[in-house]
Amino acid sequence: MKMIKAMFSVLLVLVAVSSTFGKYIPKSGKRIPQTLSRGWGDQLIWAQTYEEGLYWSRSKNKPLMVLFHLEDCPHSQALKKVFAEDDEIQKILDEDFIVLNLVYETVDKNLSPDGKYVPRFLFVDPTMTVRADITSRYSNRMYTYEPGDLQLLKSNMKKAKKLLKSEL
Amino acid sequence: MKMIKAMFSVLLVLVAVSSTFGKYIPKSGKRIPQTLSRGWGDQLIWAQTYEEGLYWSRSKNKPLMVLFHLEDCPHSQALKKVFAEDDEIQKILDEDFIVLNLVYETVDKNLSPDGKYVPRFLFVDPTMTVRADITSRYSNRMYTYEPGDLQLLKSNMKKAKKLLKSEL
Repeated sequence: MKMIKAMFSVLLVLVAVSSTFGKYIPKSGKRIPQTLSRGWGDQLIWAQTYEEGLYWSRSKNKPLMVLFHLEDCPHSQALKKVFAEDDEIQKILDEDFIVLNLVYETVDKNLSPDGKYVPRFLFVDPTMTVRADITSRYSNRMYTYEPGDLQLLKSNMKKAKKLLKSEL
Repeated sequence: MKMIKAMFSVLLVLVAVSSTFGKYIPKSGKRIPQTLSRGWGDQLIWAQTYEEGLYWSRSKNKPLMVLFHLEDCPHSQALKKVFAEDDEIQKILDEDFIVLNLVYETVDKNLSPDGKYVPRFLFVDPTMTVRADITSRYSNRMYTYEPGDLQLLKSNMKKAKKLLKSEL
């Protein structure tokens, strides 16, 4: 019995040692690992970059939704809250879309048809055509949405799901 | 007393309801949120895109390290394991570098001086110059490393920290 107890203690120490080995902790304290969702839907599978998003859109034949936002922008934050909590939006995005959220602009000018503001939602067809025709209700910022615009966003998502025919 | 109990029950129900509201769960079951580190160092602050990495490199005057890898590549996985567990590498990267890991190629051809293989590590100076001169020990794949090459990687990180002078 004593033997078993001793072995158990050794085992405990080994487990403790192995779990602290190779665990760098910054001077400022342990950080919560960053997520790719950045709060826009932790259950969705997010593309990391525009190139990756385009690749998945083409290969899965699903439209790509690109969300431009900023972590410290109150308009982005307010929209993010209702967006992440809307089960219908999350479900449709998960099943029928490729999703990408970006806090930096891409080199592709087609993703900023009327300027580089946030929040800004652009849809891209699997034919790699940016759907500049799918707009919100603000004439000066045609691709922005406010928390009260989720119904319009959903109907725009429906439009995006009607794929353009490739002429190739 | 009964009244308080009743109120407490109502409160409990409200808490239970609010915590399940707006929690979309995929048919296939709950997923673990994706991290930006993808296992290369959960405590590091990762740039999401090359554009973001370049921006931080310039503004903080720190070299950028770009890691190209693939989730299902055994060479990437083996290197990732020793890389993430090496406290010295993690500390230097955290304090002196901007870091970016990518599973898709960028449009910038300078990041693939001798081809698009993985794993592949490129350093970029804050002057936005890709340091093609900082190479590993494989003549056919000059920017790849194996798990046994961490010392070489560390000395290459030292080289990258000696910044090029901007001629602007």
